[in-house]
Amino acid sequence: MSRPLRILVWNEGVHESLNEPAHIGEIYPDGMHGAIADGLRELLPGAEVSTATLASAPDHGLTEEVLAATDVLLWWGHMAHAEVDDAVVERVQRHVLGGMGLLVLHSGHFSKIFIKLLGTSCSLAWRNDGERELVWNVKPSHPISEGVANPIIIPEQEMYGELFDIPDPDDLIFISSFAGGEVFRSGVTFTRGKGRIFYFSPGDQEYPVYHHPEVRKVLANGVRWAAQPGLDRREPGVQNLQNGWYEAIPAV
Amino acid sequence: MSRPLRILVWNEGVHESLNEPAHIGEIYPDGMHGAIADGLRELLPGAEVSTATLASAPDHGLTEEVLAATDVLLWWGHMAHAEVDDAVVERVQRHVLGGMGLLVLHSGHFSKIFIKLLGTSCSLAWRNDGERELVWNVKPSHPISEGVANPIIIPEQEMYGELFDIPDPDDLIFISSFAGGEVFRSGVTFTRGKGRIFYFSPGDQEYPVYHHPEVRKVLANGVRWAAQPGLDRREPGVQNLQNGWYEAIPAV
Amino acid sequence: MSRPLRILVWNEGVHESLNEPAHIGEIYPDGMHGAIADGLRELLPGAEVSTATLASAPDHGLTEEVLAATDVLLWWGHMAHAEVDDAVVERVQRHVLGGMGLLVLHSGHFSKIFIKLLGTSCSLAWRNDGERELVWNVKPSHPISEGVANPIIIPEQEMYGELFDIPDPDDLIFISSFAGGEVFRSGVTFTRGKGRIFYFSPGDQEYPVYHHPEVRKVLANGVRWAAQPGLDRREPGVQNLQNGWYEAIPAV
Amino acid sequence: MSRPLRILVWNEGVHESLNEPAHIGEIYPDGMHGAIADGLRELLPGAEVSTATLASAPDHGLTEEVLAATDVLLWWGHMAHAEVDDAVVERVQRHVLGGMGLLVLHSGHFSKIFIKLLGTSCSLAWRNDGERELVWNVKPSHPISEGVANPIIIPEQEMYGELFDIPDPDDLIFISSFAGGEVFRSGVTFTRGKGRIFYFSPGDQEYPVYHHPEVRKVLANGVRWAAQPGLDRREPGVQNLQNGWYEAIPAV
Repeated sequence: MSRPLRILVWNEGVHESLNEPAHIGEIYPDGMHGAIADGLRELLPGAEVSTATLASAPDHGLTEEVLAATDVLLWWGHMAHAEVDDAVVERVQRHVLGGMGLLVLHSGHFSKIFIKLLGTSCSLAWRNDGERELVWNVKPSHPISEGVANPIIIPEQEMYGELFDIPDPDDLIFISSFAGGEVFRSGVTFTRGKGRIFYFSPGDQEYPVYHHPEVRKVLANGVRWAAQPGLDRREPGVQNLQNGWYEAIPAV
Repeated sequence: MSRPLRILVWNEGVHESLNEPAHIGEIYPDGMHGAIADGLRELLPGAEVSTATLASAPDHGLTEEVLAATDVLLWWGHMAHAEVDDAVVERVQRHVLGGMGLLVLHSGHFSKIFIKLLGTSCSLAWRNDGERELVWNVKPSHPISEGVANPIIIPEQEMYGELFDIPDPDDLIFISSFAGGEVFRSGVTFTRGKGRIFYFSPGDQEYPVYHHPEVRKVLANGVRWAAQPGLDRREPGVQNLQNGWYEAIPAV
Repeated sequence: MSRPLRILVWNEGVHESLNEPAHIGEIYPDGMHGAIADGLRELLPGAEVSTATLASAPDHGLTEEVLAATDVLLWWGHMAHAEVDDAVVERVQRHVLGGMGLLVLHSGHFSKIFIKLLGTSCSLAWRNDGERELVWNVKPSHPISEGVANPIIIPEQEMYGELFDIPDPDDLIFISSFAGGEVFRSGVTFTRGKGRIFYFSPGDQEYPVYHHPEVRKVLANGVRWAAQPGLDRREPGVQNLQNGWYEAIPAV
Repeated sequence: MSRPLRILVWNEGVHESLNEPAHIGEIYPDGMHGAIADGLRELLPGAEVSTATLASAPDHGLTEEVLAATDVLLWWGHMAHAEVDDAVVERVQRHVLGGMGLLVLHSGHFSKIFIKLLGTSCSLAWRNDGERELVWNVKPSHPISEGVANPIIIPEQEMYGELFDIPDPDDLIFISSFAGGEVFRSGVTFTRGKGRIFYFSPGDQEYPVYHHPEVRKVLANGVRWAAQPGLDRREPGVQNLQNGWYEAIPAV
């Protein structure tokens, strides 16, 4: 494939529009999606990176045409999960099953699309004390951890802890510990249909995590891994083989 | 646990009520659920086995009270998936996440509950030529294959073939081949929340598969494996640890 | 199965015989194997629990006859891995592949038998500062975590940290964090042949970890899970199907 | 990485030197390694593809220097597994753990290196009746199945059947059926240390399978997937963190 990768960073954008927390504009003057997109543009030169939010029209910026032209979608949500249109969620699911990559970030664990693809509650334990998170690499042969510092040291973070109610991931890449002693499976992959999904927990509206150079590397690696630009994007469907099947297979 | 296992065999029961195919009454005079329940009663003496159908009132026989008193639910559906009430499906999902076992049978691959728990299309290839199915055991250490013939030989069956659009299972126990040359992952397990799920494809309204002694062994083994009678059945939930957490862990 | 479970706790026993560390006799007057066996006898009433050490004759107490009469073997080693006879290691491997359960404990990660069954270096990071270990349960539906406190709090321990060079486990049950911030996959299962293997890292010659009531529960649960007393213990072998195969399967 | 991929096709080469079967020289005038290397050169233009055999000196052509300069090693063996030097096998294992890719082909399932990396007997069922093999793709999102026909139809093959005594693979990509009704997990991946391993069963000294265009695509895809040319190839080792660790992590 010689065409550029097409990446869409979606953020509900409500923390930003409400100015909540008050210092969010200082940390993320262009929104979290802006910071994430900047990191991807820097590390994936040649890729086409765009952004959309809940307020984007029509369909939160997630129309059939947009998704069909997207190799990898990144998803950040928190306060407004319930406001995402169910029909749009089903459309995103269909595109993931057909082969679009999906990166779900931080509080996106409770997004409709993540729950729909995983089938569990996706709940977890949390505590926000602005403490140190260490992100340990437990799968050094995985493309997502290539070239990433071990551990990634994030000075201030919200704590996400086990029990993280997800199905067993395909690959467990990162495990985080927090100053309080909790642990969290913070980097995990899943396959659904032909689509590759990566969940990565570091990142929050209160801390400048999306400016952290190692976090940016992980997101760029995740996008590269999840992208399948050469794939036939049709979703697997029912195949009624009642007639004609034996044309393909020579009789025994 | 000394109390009996409580098992509920759910069948939409529409093939039976429509007498379609015409010989279904000869093969399954008490419905497929009746035959399945008979097999479980025979192989799991002491268990309490009951049945329900789409027509059972209220709520297709799947009320909160019934599910709370069920260790393992078996699910057969085909023609009437769409008629199952969405609220009932969410209730069943909640109980599975809390620890109720679930066995999904044959055309139940397209049931709302299976799709909701797995997150994929659950589509497959099929062809109904009444041909021989061989069910091979590829995981002899798994409790579900204990004491089961290898291969199970089913003289006449509908063909279910790959690609079966499911997430990677926790355990792949059985792979089937068909006289036409197709293969199918016919016995697979999943964990969702605290619940154990087993999908087993042999079984159909046209063939007497649920009278097959080896198929009955697999279903009884599946029930035994999926049952967790001693478990605290609360679903994993969000745990806000903002206050009081450090009471539990001595300070470093 | 109504016969008792037969459990063998194997410990190299060299720390004990060398009195190294000097206080080992106070913590483990009957050796670590004695303490482990006591815990199993307490929690698995009716089981037959015996012990053996490197010095046991013949064959470190691991003869063909002993292994054939063992449902689950527990393995503790540290200083004397190299002194274990290669022929004995191959014998243990053969019994595991045939269905004997194996629990590998703490520094047993570097035992010949563990490396032979896993195929990797089994190396890890370590630091011994007698610090707090928290053992978190990330798989509440697994029989090994049934009834176990979450987290298990071990006041003083040697730190074992990632990267733990093992193949992806079948199930990841426990993740530990240490006061220093490291994490470790401290409870993992594997299947090799028909045998079930559980590695559990807490436990050391310097700390009274094998007296900890929650650690004892984990070991008893592990033994129960790994035992397959009803299994045909023959190892999977090559099956030359050149002649006679079609006797078993009716011709199409 | 702009340097060429370095690929080494290793074949014991004994069938060829013994002219057994008698027609092997017609099917494989340059040996099976020659045909495999030709396929890779065709599909991976720019790669450096070389070959070696059991008779290559020194060390069967597998010296430290050669392995250090190899991104992916392919392994074919059958009659002479026992003649491969144990020290060479350990060397190959060390390089795999450090990140060299390994493709194990057909009867290589019984090679010393495969057994050493997997830890099981690697036995299987077999029958050689020159029958049709269908190779079904069950993981369409995996790079190894990209662009490959589904099913691959191989007109004449030796049957390899379950039970294949291997650990659960990381990914199950292909399942084969045979005209006799048997099934086989014919394309599976494993990770050991930092190394990626792919086992692919089609291929035999009696049939021209390594000239089959779809088989050649699979091997080329496998090489591409297993290669990690940018990786630090040091094997994971023990890390004693007793001193100096806290220099890296800021104190809490």
